Amino acid sequence: MPVKVVIGKDLLEENRKKASDLRKRFADAGVKVINILSAPGAGKTSLLEETVPRVRKLGIRAGVIEGDVATARDAERLSPLGIPVVQITTLGACHLDSAMIWTALSEMDLSGLDLLFIENVGNLVCPSSFDLGEDLRMVVLSTAEGSDKPAKYPAAFLSCQVVVINKTDLIPYTDFNVEQVLAEISGLKASIKTFKVSCRSKEGLDEWSVWLADWVRQG
Amino acid sequence: MPVKVVIGKDLLEENRKKASDLRKRFADAGVKVINILSAPGAGKTSLLEETVPRVRKLGIRAGVIEGDVATARDAERLSPLGIPVVQITTLGACHLDSAMIWTALSEMDLSGLDLLFIENVGNLVCPSSFDLGEDLRMVVLSTAEGSDKPAKYPAAFLSCQVVVINKTDLIPYTDFNVEQVLAEISGLKASIKTFKVSCRSKEGLDEWSVWLADWVRQG
Repeated sequence: MPVKVVIGKDLLEENRKKASDLRKRFADAGVKVINILSAPGAGKTSLLEETVPRVRKLGIRAGVIEGDVATARDAERLSPLGIPVVQITTLGACHLDSAMIWTALSEMDLSGLDLLFIENVGNLVCPSSFDLGEDLRMVVLSTAEGSDKPAKYPAAFLSCQVVVINKTDLIPYTDFNVEQVLAEISGLKASIKTFKVSCRSKEGLDEWSVWLADWVRQG
Repeated sequence: MPVKVVIGKDLLEENRKKASDLRKRFADAGVKVINILSAPGAGKTSLLEETVPRVRKLGIRAGVIEGDVATARDAERLSPLGIPVVQITTLGACHLDSAMIWTALSEMDLSGLDLLFIENVGNLVCPSSFDLGEDLRMVVLSTAEGSDKPAKYPAAFLSCQVVVINKTDLIPYTDFNVEQVLAEISGLKASIKTFKVSCRSKEGLDEWSVWLADWVRQG
Protein backbone atom coordinates (compact mmCIF):
# COMPACT_ATOMS: atom_id res chain seq x y z
CA MET A 1 0.00 0.00 0.00
CA PRO A 2 1.23 3.50 -0.80
CA VAL A 3 2.80 5.82 1.67
CA LYS A 4 2.63 9.57 1.43
CA VAL A 5 4.78 11.58 3.76
CA VAL A 6 3.15 14.95 4.20
CA ILE A 7 5.51 16.38 6.74
CA GLY A 8 8.82 17.02 5.02
CA LYS A 9 12.22 16.47 6.53
CA ASP A 10 13.15 20.15 6.34
CA LEU A 11 10.13 21.13 8.36
CA LEU A 12 10.94 18.58 11.04
CA GLU A 13 14.58 19.64 11.12
CA GLU A 14 13.61 23.29 11.51
CA ASN A 15 11.22 22.30 14.30
CA ARG A 16 13.92 20.29 16.03
CA LYS A 17 16.34 23.23 16.13
CA LYS A 18 13.77 25.55 17.65
CA ALA A 19 12.76 22.84 20.12
CA SER A 20 16.36 22.61 21.24
CA ASP A 21 16.37 26.38 21.86
CA LEU A 22 13.12 26.02 23.79
CA ARG A 23 14.53 23.24 25.92
CA LYS A 24 17.46 25.43 26.94
CA ARG A 25 15.15 28.35 27.69
CA PHE A 26 12.91 26.18 29.88
CA ALA A 27 15.91 24.74 31.73
CA ASP A 28 17.38 28.20 32.32
CA ALA A 29 14.04 29.31 33.79
CA GLY A 30 13.82 26.22 35.99
CA VAL A 31 10.47 25.24 34.46
CA LYS A 32 9.51 21.64 33.72
CA VAL A 33 7.38 21.26 30.60
CA ILE A 34 4.77 18.64 29.68
CA ASN A 35 3.39 18.19 26.14
CA ILE A 36 -0.10 16.66 26.31
CA LEU A 37 -1.38 14.67 23.33
CA SER A 38 -4.77 13.04 22.81
CA ALA A 39 -7.63 12.46 20.43
CA PRO A 40 -10.33 15.15 20.39
CA GLY A 41 -12.47 14.99 23.51
CA ALA A 42 -10.28 12.66 25.58
CA GLY A 43 -10.33 15.18 28.42
CA LYS A 44 -7.03 17.08 28.31
CA THR A 45 -8.60 20.33 29.49
CA SER A 46 -10.69 18.61 32.17
CA LEU A 47 -7.55 16.90 33.43
CA LEU A 48 -5.81 20.28 33.69
CA GLU A 49 -8.81 21.74 35.56
CA GLU A 50 -8.41 18.95 38.13
CA THR A 51 -4.63 18.76 38.21
CA VAL A 52 -3.64 22.43 38.54
CA PRO A 53 -5.38 23.02 41.92
CA ARG A 54 -4.04 19.73 43.27
CA VAL A 55 -0.41 20.41 42.40
CA ARG A 56 -0.81 23.99 43.63
CA LYS A 57 -1.59 22.59 47.10
CA LEU A 58 1.66 20.64 46.76
CA GLY A 59 3.59 23.87 46.11
CA ILE A 60 3.79 23.69 42.31
CA ARG A 61 3.02 26.85 40.31
CA ALA A 62 1.69 25.86 36.89
CA GLY A 63 0.95 27.67 33.63
CA VAL A 64 -0.71 26.44 30.46
CA ILE A 65 -0.25 26.96 26.73
CA GLU A 66 -3.44 25.88 24.96
CA GLY A 67 -3.37 24.70 21.37
CA ASP A 68 -6.53 24.53 19.29
CA VAL A 69 -7.40 24.53 15.61
CA ALA A 70 -10.14 27.06 16.32
CA THR A 71 -11.71 28.93 19.27
CA ALA A 72 -10.22 29.95 22.62
CA ARG A 73 -12.73 27.86 24.57
CA ASP A 74 -10.17 25.76 26.38
CA ALA A 75 -8.24 28.81 27.57
CA GLU A 76 -11.53 30.34 28.75
CA ARG A 77 -12.35 27.15 30.67
CA LEU A 78 -9.01 27.41 32.48
CA SER A 79 -9.32 31.08 33.30
CA PRO A 80 -11.04 30.48 36.70
CA LEU A 81 -7.89 28.68 37.84
CA GLY A 82 -6.14 32.05 38.08
CA ILE A 83 -2.95 30.89 36.41
CA PRO A 84 -1.11 32.14 33.30
CA VAL A 85 -2.81 30.73 30.20
CA VAL A 86 -1.89 31.53 26.60
CA GLN A 87 -4.03 30.29 23.73
CA ILE A 88 -2.53 29.36 20.37
CA THR A 89 -5.15 29.10 17.63
CA THR A 90 -3.58 27.30 14.70
CA LEU A 91 -6.31 28.29 12.22
CA GLY A 92 -6.47 24.83 10.72
CA ALA A 93 -2.98 23.46 11.30
CA CYS A 94 -3.14 20.01 12.85
CA HIS A 95 -0.47 20.27 15.54
CA LEU A 96 1.63 22.71 17.54
CA ASP A 97 5.22 23.30 16.50
CA SER A 98 8.15 24.76 18.37
CA ALA A 99 7.96 28.12 16.57
CA MET A 100 4.39 28.58 17.81
CA ILE A 101 5.52 27.83 21.38
CA TRP A 102 8.39 30.31 21.06
CA THR A 103 5.94 33.01 20.01
CA ALA A 104 3.49 32.10 22.78
CA LEU A 105 6.28 32.56 25.34
CA SER A 106 6.29 36.28 24.56
CA GLU A 107 2.97 36.31 26.46
CA MET A 108 4.06 34.02 29.29
CA ASP A 109 6.36 34.93 32.21
CA LEU A 110 8.27 31.75 32.97
CA SER A 111 9.96 33.20 36.06
CA GLY A 112 6.93 32.59 38.27
CA LEU A 113 6.39 29.01 37.17
CA ASP A 114 7.58 25.55 38.17
CA LEU A 115 5.57 23.66 35.56
CA LEU A 116 4.26 24.49 32.09
CA PHE A 117 1.59 22.34 30.49
CA ILE A 118 1.30 22.50 26.70
CA GLU A 119 -2.09 21.17 25.62
CA ASN A 120 -1.62 20.14 22.01
CA VAL A 121 -4.28 20.10 19.28
CA GLY A 122 -6.66 17.13 19.70
CA ASN A 123 -5.03 14.75 17.25
CA LEU A 124 -3.35 11.40 17.90
CA VAL A 125 -1.30 11.47 14.70
CA CYS A 126 0.49 14.65 13.64
CA PRO A 127 1.61 16.13 17.00
CA SER A 128 3.68 12.99 17.59
CA SER A 129 6.32 14.19 15.14
CA PHE A 130 6.83 17.64 16.67
CA ASP A 131 9.18 18.11 19.62
CA LEU A 132 8.13 21.20 21.59
CA GLY A 133 11.17 21.21 23.85
CA GLU A 134 9.21 19.39 26.54
CA ASP A 135 10.70 17.35 29.39
CA LEU A 136 7.85 14.88 29.36
CA ARG A 137 5.25 13.87 26.81
CA MET A 138 1.99 12.32 27.90
CA VAL A 139 -1.00 10.84 26.10
CA VAL A 140 -4.50 11.11 27.55
CA LEU A 141 -6.64 8.18 26.45
CA SER A 142 -10.40 8.13 27.01
CA THR A 143 -11.97 4.78 27.88
CA ALA A 144 -14.77 5.62 25.43
CA GLU A 145 -12.28 5.45 22.53
CA GLY A 146 -11.89 1.69 22.79
CA SER A 147 -9.04 -0.61 23.72
CA ASP A 148 -7.25 -0.67 20.37
CA LYS A 149 -5.84 2.86 20.30
CA PRO A 150 -2.22 2.17 21.38
CA ALA A 151 -1.81 -0.34 18.53
CA LYS A 152 -3.60 1.86 16.02
CA TYR A 153 -1.75 5.10 16.87
CA PRO A 154 1.68 3.76 17.85
CA ALA A 155 3.70 6.92 17.12
CA ALA A 156 1.96 8.92 19.84
CA PHE A 157 2.36 6.18 22.42
CA LEU A 158 5.94 5.32 21.43
CA SER A 159 6.96 8.95 21.81
CA CYS A 160 5.50 9.47 25.29
CA GLN A 161 6.63 8.62 28.80
CA VAL A 162 3.25 8.77 30.55
CA VAL A 163 -0.26 7.62 29.60
CA VAL A 164 -3.24 8.84 31.60
CA ILE A 165 -6.33 6.72 31.03
CA ASN A 166 -9.25 9.10 31.63
CA LYS A 167 -13.02 8.59 32.05
CA THR A 168 -12.66 5.38 34.06
CA ASP A 169 -16.21 6.10 35.26
CA LEU A 170 -17.45 5.11 31.78
CA ILE A 171 -15.80 1.66 31.80
CA PRO A 172 -18.98 -0.15 32.95
CA TYR A 173 -20.83 1.23 29.92
CA THR A 174 -18.19 0.43 27.29
CA ASP A 175 -16.15 -2.50 25.97
CA PHE A 176 -12.95 -0.89 27.27
CA ASN A 177 -10.59 -3.53 28.64
CA VAL A 178 -8.07 -1.92 31.00
CA GLU A 179 -5.84 -4.99 31.16
CA GLN A 180 -5.67 -5.29 27.38
CA VAL A 181 -4.79 -1.61 27.02
CA LEU A 182 -2.12 -1.71 29.72
CA ALA A 183 -0.65 -4.81 28.07
CA GLU A 184 -0.62 -3.13 24.65
CA ILE A 185 1.01 0.01 26.03
CA SER A 186 3.59 -2.03 27.87
CA GLY A 187 4.16 -4.09 24.73
CA LEU A 188 4.88 -0.95 22.73
CA LYS A 189 7.26 0.51 25.30
CA ALA A 190 7.70 -1.08 28.70
CA SER A 191 8.94 2.11 30.39
CA ILE A 192 5.67 4.04 29.94
CA LYS A 193 4.13 4.99 33.27
CA THR A 194 0.33 4.73 33.38
CA PHE A 195 -2.37 6.31 35.53
CA LYS A 196 -6.11 5.65 35.65
CA VAL A 197 -8.28 8.67 36.46
CA SER A 198 -11.79 10.04 36.14
CA CYS A 199 -12.33 13.79 36.08
CA ARG A 200 -15.99 13.06 36.84
CA SER A 201 -15.72 10.68 39.80
CA LYS A 202 -12.29 12.13 40.79
CA GLU A 203 -10.81 8.62 40.96
CA GLY A 204 -7.02 8.55 40.72
CA LEU A 205 -6.53 12.32 40.47
CA ASP A 206 -4.79 12.73 43.83
CA GLU A 207 -2.37 9.89 43.11
CA TRP A 208 -1.59 11.32 39.66
CA SER A 209 -1.06 14.83 41.06
CA VAL A 210 1.25 13.65 43.84
CA TRP A 211 3.36 11.75 41.32
CA LEU A 212 3.45 14.82 39.07
CA ALA A 213 4.48 17.20 41.85
CA ASP A 214 7.26 14.81 42.86
CA TRP A 215 8.43 14.61 39.25
CA VAL A 216 8.55 18.41 38.98
CA ARG A 217 10.51 18.76 42.20
CA GLN A 218 12.95 15.96 41.58
CA GLY A 219 13.90 17.59 38.29
CA MET B 1 -0.85 34.06 17.03
CA PRO B 2 1.29 32.33 14.37
CA VAL B 3 -0.09 30.13 11.66
CA LYS B 4 1.86 27.35 10.04
CA VAL B 5 0.39 25.72 6.99
CA VAL B 6 1.84 22.23 6.76
CA ILE B 7 -0.14 21.02 3.80
CA GLY B 8 1.10 22.88 0.75
CA LYS B 9 -1.03 24.13 -2.11
CA ASP B 10 0.69 21.87 -4.66
CA LEU B 11 -0.13 18.79 -2.66
CA LEU B 12 -3.77 19.80 -2.39
CA GLU B 13 -3.96 20.63 -6.10
CA GLU B 14 -2.47 17.25 -7.02
CA ASN B 15 -4.99 15.59 -4.71
CA ARG B 16 -7.86 17.49 -6.27
CA LYS B 17 -6.98 16.33 -9.79
CA LYS B 18 -6.83 12.71 -8.79
CA ALA B 19 -10.07 13.10 -6.83
CA SER B 20 -11.72 14.38 -9.96
CA ASP B 21 -10.55 11.26 -11.82
CA LEU B 22 -11.88 9.12 -8.97
CA ARG B 23 -15.26 10.84 -9.07
CA LYS B 24 -15.60 10.03 -12.77
CA ARG B 25 -14.54 6.44 -12.20
CA PHE B 26 -17.10 6.00 -9.39
CA ALA B 27 -19.86 7.57 -11.48
CA ASP B 28 -19.03 5.35 -14.47
CA ALA B 29 -19.26 2.29 -12.23
CA GLY B 30 -22.56 3.47 -10.73
CA VAL B 31 -21.13 3.40 -7.21
CA LYS B 32 -21.97 6.02 -4.58
CA VAL B 33 -19.08 6.83 -2.26
CA ILE B 34 -19.05 8.05 1.34
CA ASN B 35 -15.94 9.43 3.07
CA ILE B 36 -16.22 8.92 6.83
CA LEU B 37 -14.30 11.25 9.16
CA SER B 38 -14.05 11.17 12.95
CA ALA B 39 -11.78 11.43 15.94
CA PRO B 40 -10.08 8.21 17.01
CA GLY B 41 -12.54 5.87 18.70
CA ALA B 42 -15.77 7.63 17.71
CA GLY B 43 -17.08 4.36 16.32
CA LYS B 44 -16.65 4.49 12.54
CA THR B 45 -15.96 0.76 12.26
CA SER B 46 -18.75 -0.16 14.67
CA LEU B 47 -21.14 1.95 12.63
CA LEU B 48 -20.09 0.06 9.47
CA GLU B 49 -20.58 -3.28 11.24
CA GLU B 50 -24.16 -2.23 11.99
CA THR B 51 -24.93 -0.40 8.76
CA VAL B 52 -23.69 -2.86 6.13
CA PRO B 53 -26.11 -5.72 7.06
CA ARG B 54 -29.01 -3.26 7.35
CA VAL B 55 -28.52 -1.71 3.92
CA ARG B 56 -27.89 -5.18 2.46
CA LYS B 57 -31.44 -6.13 3.51
CA LEU B 58 -32.55 -3.04 1.62
CA GLY B 59 -30.84 -4.27 -1.54
CA ILE B 60 -27.63 -2.22 -1.29
CA ARG B 61 -24.32 -3.99 -1.95
CA ALA B 62 -21.56 -2.23 -0.02
CA GLY B 63 -17.77 -2.38 0.03
CA VAL B 64 -15.26 -0.69 2.35
CA ILE B 65 -11.85 0.91 2.01
CA GLU B 66 -10.29 1.11 5.47
CA GLY B 67 -7.68 3.74 6.29
CA ASP B 68 -5.44 3.43 9.31
CA VAL B 69 -2.08 4.76 10.39
CA ALA B 70 -1.10 1.29 11.53
CA THR B 71 -2.58 -2.24 11.76
CA ALA B 72 -5.27 -3.93 9.68
CA ARG B 73 -7.53 -4.44 12.70
CA ASP B 74 -10.49 -2.55 11.29
CA ALA B 75 -10.46 -4.53 8.04
CA GLU B 76 -10.26 -7.73 10.09
CA ARG B 77 -13.25 -6.63 12.16
CA LEU B 78 -15.27 -6.17 8.97
CA SER B 79 -14.25 -9.47 7.41
CA PRO B 80 -17.22 -11.41 8.92
CA LEU B 81 -19.56 -9.17 6.90
CA GLY B 82 -18.49 -11.03 3.76
CA ILE B 83 -18.08 -7.88 1.66
CA PRO B 84 -15.09 -6.50 -0.26
CA VAL B 85 -12.75 -4.75 2.16
CA VAL B 86 -9.39 -3.21 1.28
CA GLN B 87 -7.09 -1.89 3.99
CA ILE B 88 -4.82 1.11 3.41
CA THR B 89 -2.13 1.40 6.06
CA THR B 90 -0.65 4.89 5.81
CA LEU B 91 2.42 4.07 7.93
CA GLY B 92 2.18 7.30 9.84
CA ALA B 93 0.46 9.65 7.41
CA CYS B 94 -2.42 11.43 9.07
CA HIS B 95 -5.09 11.17 6.36
CA LEU B 96 -6.06 9.34 3.19
CA ASP B 97 -5.47 11.05 -0.14
CA SER B 98 -6.92 10.39 -3.56
CA ALA B 99 -3.78 8.63 -4.84
CA MET B 100 -4.09 6.08 -2.03
CA ILE B 101 -7.72 5.45 -2.98
CA TRP B 102 -6.76 5.06 -6.64
CA THR B 103 -4.22 2.41 -5.69
CA ALA B 104 -6.66 0.65 -3.36
CA LEU B 105 -9.14 0.36 -6.22
CA SER B 106 -6.77 -2.06 -7.96
CA GLU B 107 -7.86 -4.52 -5.24
CA MET B 108 -11.57 -3.64 -5.32
CA ASP B 109 -14.07 -4.68 -8.03
CA LEU B 110 -16.52 -1.78 -8.25
CA SER B 111 -18.82 -3.56 -10.69
CA GLY B 112 -20.53 -5.57 -7.94
CA LEU B 113 -21.12 -2.58 -5.66
CA ASP B 114 -23.77 0.08 -5.14
CA LEU B 115 -22.02 1.83 -2.26
CA LEU B 116 -18.40 2.26 -1.21
CA PHE B 117 -17.55 3.44 2.29
CA ILE B 118 -14.12 4.98 2.80
CA GLU B 119 -13.23 4.95 6.49
CA ASN B 120 -10.61 7.66 6.88
CA VAL B 121 -7.82 7.79 9.47
CA GLY B 122 -9.14 8.72 12.91
CA ASN B 123 -8.37 12.43 12.84
CA LEU B 124 -10.74 15.39 12.91
CA VAL B 125 -8.23 17.81 11.36
CA CYS B 126 -6.15 16.73 8.36
CA PRO B 127 -8.59 14.53 6.41
CA SER B 128 -10.89 17.56 6.03
CA SER B 129 -8.62 19.02 3.36
CA PHE B 130 -8.47 15.94 1.13
CA ASP B 131 -11.21 15.25 -1.38
CA LEU B 132 -11.35 11.52 -2.13
CA GLY B 133 -13.81 11.82 -4.98
CA GLU B 134 -16.68 11.00 -2.63
CA ASP B 135 -20.34 11.86 -3.21
CA LEU B 136 -20.98 12.43 0.46
CA ARG B 137 -18.80 13.22 3.44
CA MET B 138 -19.93 12.38 6.95
CA VAL B 139 -18.54 12.97 10.41
CA VAL B 140 -19.11 10.49 13.22
CA LEU B 141 -19.13 12.25 16.60
CA SER B 142 -19.06 10.30 19.85
CA THR B 143 -21.09 11.69 22.74
CA ALA B 144 -18.11 10.95 25.00
CA GLU B 145 -16.05 13.59 23.16
CA GLY B 146 -18.07 16.48 24.59
CA SER B 147 -20.38 19.05 23.09
CA ASP B 148 -17.76 21.50 21.86
CA LYS B 149 -16.31 19.54 18.95
CA PRO B 150 -18.16 21.19 16.02
CA ALA B 151 -16.89 24.62 17.10
CA LYS B 152 -13.41 23.35 17.84
CA TYR B 153 -12.96 21.37 14.61
CA PRO B 154 -14.98 23.46 12.14
CA ALA B 155 -13.23 22.35 8.95
CA ALA B 156 -14.41 18.76 9.27
CA PHE B 157 -17.99 19.77 10.01
CA LEU B 158 -18.10 22.51 7.37
CA SER B 159 -16.93 20.07 4.71
CA CYS B 160 -19.52 17.35 5.45
CA GLN B 161 -23.17 16.83 4.56
CA VAL B 162 -24.06 14.35 7.31
CA VAL B 163 -23.18 14.06 11.00
CA VAL B 164 -23.90 10.84 12.85
CA ILE B 165 -23.86 11.29 16.62
CA ASN B 166 -22.83 7.90 17.97
CA LYS B 167 -22.83 6.36 21.49
CA THR B 168 -26.12 7.98 22.52
CA ASP B 169 -26.26 5.24 25.19
CA LEU B 170 -23.46 7.08 27.03
CA ILE B 171 -25.31 10.42 27.23
CA PRO B 172 -26.65 9.80 30.77
CA TYR B 173 -23.07 9.34 32.00
CA THR B 174 -21.55 12.40 30.30
CA ASP B 175 -22.06 16.16 30.02
CA PHE B 176 -22.99 15.79 26.34
CA ASN B 177 -25.77 18.19 25.42
CA VAL B 178 -27.51 17.02 22.25
CA GLU B 179 -29.41 20.27 21.75
CA GLN B 180 -26.26 22.37 22.06
CA VAL B 181 -24.42 20.17 19.58
CA LEU B 182 -27.24 20.17 17.06
CA ALA B 183 -27.46 23.96 17.37
CA GLU B 184 -23.71 24.34 16.85
CA ILE B 185 -23.74 22.07 13.81
CA SER B 186 -26.70 23.91 12.36
CA GLY B 187 -24.99 27.22 13.11
CA LEU B 188 -21.92 26.13 11.16
CA LYS B 189 -23.91 24.89 8.14
CA ALA B 190 -27.68 24.67 8.23
CA SER B 191 -27.88 22.03 5.49
CA ILE B 192 -26.08 19.31 7.47
CA LYS B 193 -28.31 16.30 8.10
CA THR B 194 -27.91 14.70 11.52
CA PHE B 195 -28.64 11.27 12.95
CA LYS B 196 -28.43 9.99 16.52
CA VAL B 197 -27.41 6.36 16.92
CA SER B 198 -25.95 3.88 19.36
CA CYS B 199 -24.10 0.85 18.05
CA ARG B 200 -24.50 -0.66 21.54
CA SER B 201 -28.23 -0.14 22.19
CA LYS B 202 -28.96 -0.14 18.41
CA GLU B 203 -30.97 3.09 18.77
CA GLY B 204 -31.42 4.98 15.52
CA LEU B 205 -29.54 2.49 13.31
CA ASP B 206 -32.57 1.39 11.29
CA GLU B 207 -33.63 4.96 10.59
CA TRP B 208 -30.09 5.88 9.51
CA SER B 209 -29.80 2.82 7.26
CA VAL B 210 -33.14 3.45 5.56
CA TRP B 211 -32.15 7.04 4.84
CA LEU B 212 -28.79 5.84 3.50
CA ALA B 213 -30.31 3.20 1.20
CA ASP B 214 -32.72 5.79 -0.17
CA TRP B 215 -29.85 8.18 -0.77
CA VAL B 216 -27.89 5.50 -2.67
CA ARG B 217 -30.87 4.61 -4.83
CA GLN B 218 -31.99 8.14 -5.59
CA GLY B 219 -28.55 8.93 -6.93
